[in-house]
Amino acid sequence: MSTNLTLNIPTKEETQIFSDRINSNIMKVKKSGTLLLNEISKKLEAEGKRVYKFGFGQSPFPPHSSIISALKDGADKSDYANVQGIPDLLKAVANFHKKIDKIDADPKNIIIGPGSKILFYSLFKVFEKANVLIPSPAWVSYEPQVKLVGHNSIRLYTTFENKWRVTPQMLDQECSKLDKDIPIILIMNYPGNPDGLTYNESELKDLTQVLRKHKVLVISDEIYALMHHKNEHLCFGRFYPEGSIIANGLSKWCGAGGWRLGTLVLPETLAGDFKDSLLGYASETYSCVATPIQAAAVKAYDNIDNISDYLAYQRKILSTVGNMSVDILRESGIRVHAPEGGFYIYIDFENLREKLAKKGITDSLALCAKALEETGAAILSGKSFGSKAEDLVARLSYVDFDGAKTLEAAQKYSLNQEFPKEFINEYCEKTIEGCQKLADWAKSL
Amino acid sequence: MSTNLTLNIPTKEETQIFSDRINSNIMKVKKSGTLLLNEISKKLEAEGKRVYKFGFGQSPFPPHSSIISALKDGADKSDYANVQGIPDLLKAVANFHKKIDKIDADPKNIIIGPGSKILFYSLFKVFEKANVLIPSPAWVSYEPQVKLVGHNSIRLYTTFENKWRVTPQMLDQECSKLDKDIPIILIMNYPGNPDGLTYNESELKDLTQVLRKHKVLVISDEIYALMHHKNEHLCFGRFYPEGSIIANGLSKWCGAGGWRLGTLVLPETLAGDFKDSLLGYASETYSCVATPIQAAAVKAYDNIDNISDYLAYQRKILSTVGNMSVDILRESGIRVHAPEGGFYIYIDFENLREKLAKKGITDSLALCAKALEETGAAILSGKSFGSKAEDLVARLSYVDFDGAKTLEAAQKYSLNQEFPKEFINEYCEKTIEGCQKLADWAKSL
Repeated sequence: MSTNLTLNIPTKEETQIFSDRINSNIMKVKKSGTLLLNEISKKLEAEGKRVYKFGFGQSPFPPHSSIISALKDGADKSDYANVQGIPDLLKAVANFHKKIDKIDADPKNIIIGPGSKILFYSLFKVFEKANVLIPSPAWVSYEPQVKLVGHNSIRLYTTFENKWRVTPQMLDQECSKLDKDIPIILIMNYPGNPDGLTYNESELKDLTQVLRKHKVLVISDEIYALMHHKNEHLCFGRFYPEGSIIANGLSKWCGAGGWRLGTLVLPETLAGDFKDSLLGYASETYSCVATPIQAAAVKAYDNIDNISDYLAYQRKILSTVGNMSVDILRESGIRVHAPEGGFYIYIDFENLREKLAKKGITDSLALCAKALEETGAAILSGKSFGSKAEDLVARLSYVDFDGAKTLEAAQKYSLNQEFPKEFINEYCEKTIEGCQKLADWAKSL
Repeated sequence: MSTNLTLNIPTKEETQIFSDRINSNIMKVKKSGTLLLNEISKKLEAEGKRVYKFGFGQSPFPPHSSIISALKDGADKSDYANVQGIPDLLKAVANFHKKIDKIDADPKNIIIGPGSKILFYSLFKVFEKANVLIPSPAWVSYEPQVKLVGHNSIRLYTTFENKWRVTPQMLDQECSKLDKDIPIILIMNYPGNPDGLTYNESELKDLTQVLRKHKVLVISDEIYALMHHKNEHLCFGRFYPEGSIIANGLSKWCGAGGWRLGTLVLPETLAGDFKDSLLGYASETYSCVATPIQAAAVKAYDNIDNISDYLAYQRKILSTVGNMSVDILRESGIRVHAPEGGFYIYIDFENLREKLAKKGITDSLALCAKALEETGAAILSGKSFGSKAEDLVARLSYVDFDGAKTLEAAQKYSLNQEFPKEFINEYCEKTIEGCQKLADWAKSL
């Protein structure tokens, strides 16, 4: 090897000229709101303070051991896979949706991608131009994606009183105003991030009437479906089969966010050009999901009946700790709905607005910064989820506990009876303590 | 669970209206040229014919056993990772580039992504607008990516006589014509796909002079670096440190294309806003690489010294079978350069143009279709790589053999002497036979 090259080393000036040339021509992508929170959290921890990590949205539970074994078994698979997904996985995911969601899912309409996040982005990218309706509050990445692709982002502002749900009235009103030549997409997400709430049958039916009238494409993010606390999730595809894309993945029910595997079920109406364009785009960007991960996912989906206890215990832990958190917070004047699924609650300080104003706190960013500083509870401001800055709301992710230990210890209780509070107090101690600190702070205002 | 819902089933007309509404508003992403080839190949195989799979660009070798073990060991890692990559991997990749490429790689400037393909796309996406210079021929996905992002794609047409290399003259001429307000990006890829050739020291120095003059950003795709047949790859970052982004990954040297792990080394000039934007975009799309895969990659990069024989045997097999293929093909009048790296050769039927014309073949698509039909050799038309349609060129990937078996059997020979031809004839029989069929066909024209 030639190691003694005489190279053309740039002068400092040449380097500066190059740097200026490139850096002044780039697009600025804003950092996410979670980063600031992490920075303050780290500072507090460095000072020896206890920080309650209520900001991050990751399942606390590990993947089931049978699924980890399947990944080990698939470790020697190293070939490129089909863009759409390996055939066994397409079948397994279709069967899963038939069984769990009771929708008519055909393997040919299943798409596997490296996380549902990039699948959403790819779906947006299929359209030349679209009007995308995003509820407020909603998951942090929908809106930045819509803007990066160049579509119109239109927020549907929901209220505490309406349980942060999109109503048929607001939907109809918004759709009626829009240019008829541009397709309309509605993002649905239930059980919801950041609110932990869901829609019931009559709400979904009423929404469908409006969607059908305006021919709206629904991207229904049902990643928390199996984490519906009562296991009573109703898939949007049952109500609006011709117009719903159902998104799911391994991250929440399987505790495998870091494995990056998301799924889509396309409606039969989009099985032609639309699917081809989606796969064409995928083939030019992410190509396929890592094959060992796909092999493990086949096991996860095929094995769903054999891990029902694993799922049921997760749900019951989440429901119990979520409801205990809500009880603690409500005592202090914070408004919050009891969670119905997932692991978040969206807490509202509206009743404390005057008291907060006296401390100079008039928006959710200031609220969260102050709460973190004075209590160690890291909650994420409503602004990150598209709530108006002045709305005094924040997401609390009630899973700052060791999911593996808690799941193991929970097995000593029957699924047919309530978990004793002492059990949660012991195993989810940090979450309960953090909520108490936050409640005490609210009371002291 | 509510299983007996009365749903609003759409009428056939409603379904049609929805379908028309959505499908008429989408962007059409063209299918890649490989698909047509696959279709004809499948048809021939269904007819019982032997098809020589010279079209697909995947390493025939398996990952080293130590790396597969590392993936098994990392199977229980399921947390989300940093967008940029896990810290151990950033360090390991930086050390790898310092050692192998002799460039000043800092862990803070390393980016890990799910395949180098999506890393290229993300790099393009950082720019508001760019003029992207792409050699012809070049890998199939650069140009579609540039167009999907909305940049200007400008081809630099190279010639057989110039060994398909970009020359300083053509580069200077092209850059001089371009709008000074829009950044210029040059794609480099060596050892190259589809040509299997590389650049020498003086060529890289001469190119650098021009690039520095025009402040061009180079994205240097060095995914085949370790598969330089003589292990003498020269990293572009040694010549143009302020302006080169070096891309690499596990797919080629590690036989793990299906694991989807690519890497970038950013120059220090882009360590600020540029890197932040890149990571911002990544955080809104692919998030991070699957954590078990990252754990395995740490082992692969850290362990590079202990698997030097594994790499050397791969190189020697590729070099031997590649050169034997070239010898066979040249006899028939096909023009082709002996390969210097990777596993492709770019074969040129220019000397047979008149004979082909008499059979009605005047472009590379017709050439490849006819060759496949009459010989069973599936080669990929030069048009897919951006050569002009009328240029009678095609890529031949000379790795239609069982890499695991060949690699194992090769160990009985010393690395210090040439492999006997009989060894290749036995283990890479299909590749050799396919080249012979193609040569016989060319002679028979």
